[in-house]
Amino acid sequence: MKTVTGFASATVGNVACGFDVLGFAITEPGDEVILTLHDEPRSGSPVTITSISGDGGALPLDPKKNTSSFVVLKFLEYIRSTKGIDFKGHIDLELKKHLPLSSGMGSSAASAAAALVAANELLGSPCSKMELVHFAIEGERVACGSAHADNAAPAMLGNFILIRSYHPLDLITIRPPKDLFCTLVHPHTEVKTSFARSVLPKSIPLSMAIQQWGNVGALVSGLLMEDYDLIGRALVDVVAEPKRAPLIPGFNEVKQAALDAGALGCSIAGSGPSVFAFSSSRATAETVGAAMQETFKLSKAELDSDMWVSPVCSQGARVISSTL
Amino acid sequence: MKTVTGFASATVGNVACGFDVLGFAITEPGDEVILTLHDEPRSGSPVTITSISGDGGALPLDPKKNTSSFVVLKFLEYIRSTKGIDFKGHIDLELKKHLPLSSGMGSSAASAAAALVAANELLGSPCSKMELVHFAIEGERVACGSAHADNAAPAMLGNFILIRSYHPLDLITIRPPKDLFCTLVHPHTEVKTSFARSVLPKSIPLSMAIQQWGNVGALVSGLLMEDYDLIGRALVDVVAEPKRAPLIPGFNEVKQAALDAGALGCSIAGSGPSVFAFSSSRATAETVGAAMQETFKLSKAELDSDMWVSPVCSQGARVISSTL
Repeated sequence: MKTVTGFASATVGNVACGFDVLGFAITEPGDEVILTLHDEPRSGSPVTITSISGDGGALPLDPKKNTSSFVVLKFLEYIRSTKGIDFKGHIDLELKKHLPLSSGMGSSAASAAAALVAANELLGSPCSKMELVHFAIEGERVACGSAHADNAAPAMLGNFILIRSYHPLDLITIRPPKDLFCTLVHPHTEVKTSFARSVLPKSIPLSMAIQQWGNVGALVSGLLMEDYDLIGRALVDVVAEPKRAPLIPGFNEVKQAALDAGALGCSIAGSGPSVFAFSSSRATAETVGAAMQETFKLSKAELDSDMWVSPVCSQGARVISSTL
Repeated sequence: MKTVTGFASATVGNVACGFDVLGFAITEPGDEVILTLHDEPRSGSPVTITSISGDGGALPLDPKKNTSSFVVLKFLEYIRSTKGIDFKGHIDLELKKHLPLSSGMGSSAASAAAALVAANELLGSPCSKMELVHFAIEGERVACGSAHADNAAPAMLGNFILIRSYHPLDLITIRPPKDLFCTLVHPHTEVKTSFARSVLPKSIPLSMAIQQWGNVGALVSGLLMEDYDLIGRALVDVVAEPKRAPLIPGFNEVKQAALDAGALGCSIAGSGPSVFAFSSSRATAETVGAAMQETFKLSKAELDSDMWVSPVCSQGARVISSTL
């Protein structure tokens, strides 16, 4: 019996000005997917979900509807048609969720990326990560209705990932500055991605768009030139954040608290409700996190929260154990 | 009698996706401004334009209306109020224009930047280039009605300049990849900046804006990572180029000819009618230029053109001779 465990971590999409084109991975927390290969065929789906923990029973057990199994099915189809690998056995899938659902932390992307690296290892590593990332992105369609890449790509590849284009998929890896630390705070409230998307305008003034792409260029410059002040100045989102901030109780105060505590910048993680901040040392990132949590607690909604401090992960999804 | 000659070169604003936020300088052609200092005061303006060559008589001789003298007047006001330098004499200004007017090559910005570095040298270099750039930008208001920085800033500072913000002014210098060459072709036709601006929409679909800022991030990545293929893929302007291309006879064919000849990418220089292309060697940039010129000539309008091949200038405006 062959067993492989894949791991992929939380990711932050958008990154303020980089709405829909930028995301990055942190080192923890992350989801684990344990795949066990059985050589004998079984009727029905070649992938069976044997257990899910940490989701409070929210995720589907149907292998076509659960993101982690769905992407493995897509992977099996792909290696059959393009690599001539006709897998006849079956795979049991165990999902250990450590990421909260609907949190803006890329929960579905982490499960998909973890499942894909495990499946690839299990079947002899026929695919590169660049091939696997396509299925991780497809998995987002199952999870939340649109095949966006700003969580799935960094969950698979690590680092900052800039999505230049979807057709063809053109992903640019930007290595993080060495002293950049992310504080991620998840307040215990929920923002539905679909609702967070519905509050956005269909069109925006050209002048606002220009301001946003000036900041995107500046953020990329700051990351590549390791200019922490510039990273901070560029973490401005004039498009999505003003519309989405009201969906997160206390957001403006939490952001101000982060800046007052020394953060370079602060914005909404993905579509929220989690909030991220960047700092130029771990110690500052810890102080920032404490201030953010305290401010959520002192807000009218008196929100409890979880908090993580992490560098940007340069590894991406990976196999953490294997009995091959 | 003290005489200083300042020089500043042509610049290309917008750079495809970087509409209104990006520009770069090339090494030639450029404008020259010769300033001669007379210690004795003279009634009226402290700056007199004694001659202008190369403009076909188009530019005003009134020192408040000519960009090159206007910026010197602003500079004199500034050093009086902030540096305590109360200049009592007068300055004669001679402008040698080598850049065509209304060409999209940053003609007014070059004159302003050349005049400012000469004036600064003449009066003992009281200002940094970062201070001078403010006046060069103000000069654009006199020249074309709006104080835009995408020509003025690179004319003064050289390199690629990304304008993150105007208030406060936040300019980011991006050094060019060493093998990047620009082909600049100026067809003998005119596009008024004000008209080129009037064809742009006031607002754009969010999806279009996202595509543009993905490309801006990618272009900055390509420049900083010296990834020539990425630079080429990112040189896409979905906002301004489609609206402005019809104002330049034969533009689409010229762009295709540049790409067919091996250019990384090609777009409109500023608001046109000049067209620029990037290549990853001087030899390719020369071949690309010949193809572009031939295509302009074969277009319905049978346009003659001038062509320059140049690396990106890393110096910016400078004093080229001085009798101090």
